[in-house]
Amino acid sequence: MTETSLTVAVIDPSRVRAAILEEGLRAAGVGTVVVVADGPDLQARVAALKPDVVVVHLESPSRDILEQMSGIARHVERPVAMFVDRSDATMMQAAVDAGISAYVVDGLRTERIRPILDIAILRFNAFARLQRELLEAKSELADRKVIDRAKGILMSRKGLSEEESYKLLRKQAMNEKRKIIDIAKAIVTAADLLG
Amino acid sequence: MTETSLTVAVIDPSRVRAAILEEGLRAAGVGTVVVVADGPDLQARVAALKPDVVVVHLESPSRDILEQMSGIARHVERPVAMFVDRSDATMMQAAVDAGISAYVVDGLRTERIRPILDIAILRFNAFARLQRELLEAKSELADRKVIDRAKGILMSRKGLSEEESYKLLRKQAMNEKRKIIDIAKAIVTAADLLG
Repeated sequence: MTETSLTVAVIDPSRVRAAILEEGLRAAGVGTVVVVADGPDLQARVAALKPDVVVVHLESPSRDILEQMSGIARHVERPVAMFVDRSDATMMQAAVDAGISAYVVDGLRTERIRPILDIAILRFNAFARLQRELLEAKSELADRKVIDRAKGILMSRKGLSEEESYKLLRKQAMNEKRKIIDIAKAIVTAADLLG
Repeated sequence: MTETSLTVAVIDPSRVRAAILEEGLRAAGVGTVVVVADGPDLQARVAALKPDVVVVHLESPSRDILEQMSGIARHVERPVAMFVDRSDATMMQAAVDAGISAYVVDGLRTERIRPILDIAILRFNAFARLQRELLEAKSELADRKVIDRAKGILMSRKGLSEEESYKLLRKQAMNEKRKIIDIAKAIVTAADLLG
């Protein structure tokens, strides 16, 4: 078994359930457990804790709570594990879509908590890596399209070759200590505005 | 609870464990359960069944079995749920890296099987969708680079403008009933070979 000590944020929409969960986590010896009261600024308060994983324990999930947890997974960028006593198919789909890293139906047992949290963290990292790669690829593609448009504008307006246009973009970027993509964006915007 | 009937392929590296799992699945009323013997052509035999989910039950996982399950997840493109009695951190990481959609440590209980499989299927689909998007973005980017190179070759060799080069690529593609990217690849290859 993993021996690393985790910092776990327990979110508390119900005091009794949060207490059971907290006790389970302490009994499982996962590390530091902090109960975070539900309420305003939840995201900011969770973010301040920098937990390894966020855990919530519900009878059954609602759209509201899933949205809240999704915000934590996406904006605070922390793995979320949800223990629910029961769930229907719609809520399962909503939980997966919300980026919940572990969604455990009727499976809260002290001796099983640790591996569930460990897997949730690993799964969150794997998914986050893939999403980061996707964002990078999309942004590279978008940049390339803008740079191509800017080159095209320079080629037609200034009668330059493609290579000369690119060199001009690069030179301007160096002179202004900016990125080529920023110069390209400026050219495209100017061309759109000035015609 | 979900009521859809699933086709489940149970992979059998140990006859006793597969039998326990099969019985659990039948008791949970998940749908059709087929036990697939371990051995040669496992991937092909699983693929032929077109299961909704592939399930395996082990005392503890090995690199070999994870590789096998990874092959099923990646090449047969089916979700894999693994029930293991125990696991260490290394094997958890290996399971997540292998694309295992549910990795349940010490959690095989009849009444919990169905939600675990449902979540595994949803999670698999979410991950597969992200991977597909990433592949598409990467391939669009790669295509765009090749088309840019081909345009550059046409521009310098034939004294064309960028627009004229692109039109020439497109015309040739229409004439040959091929894609622009294929014409672009041919031009790049020819230029590399012929200098």
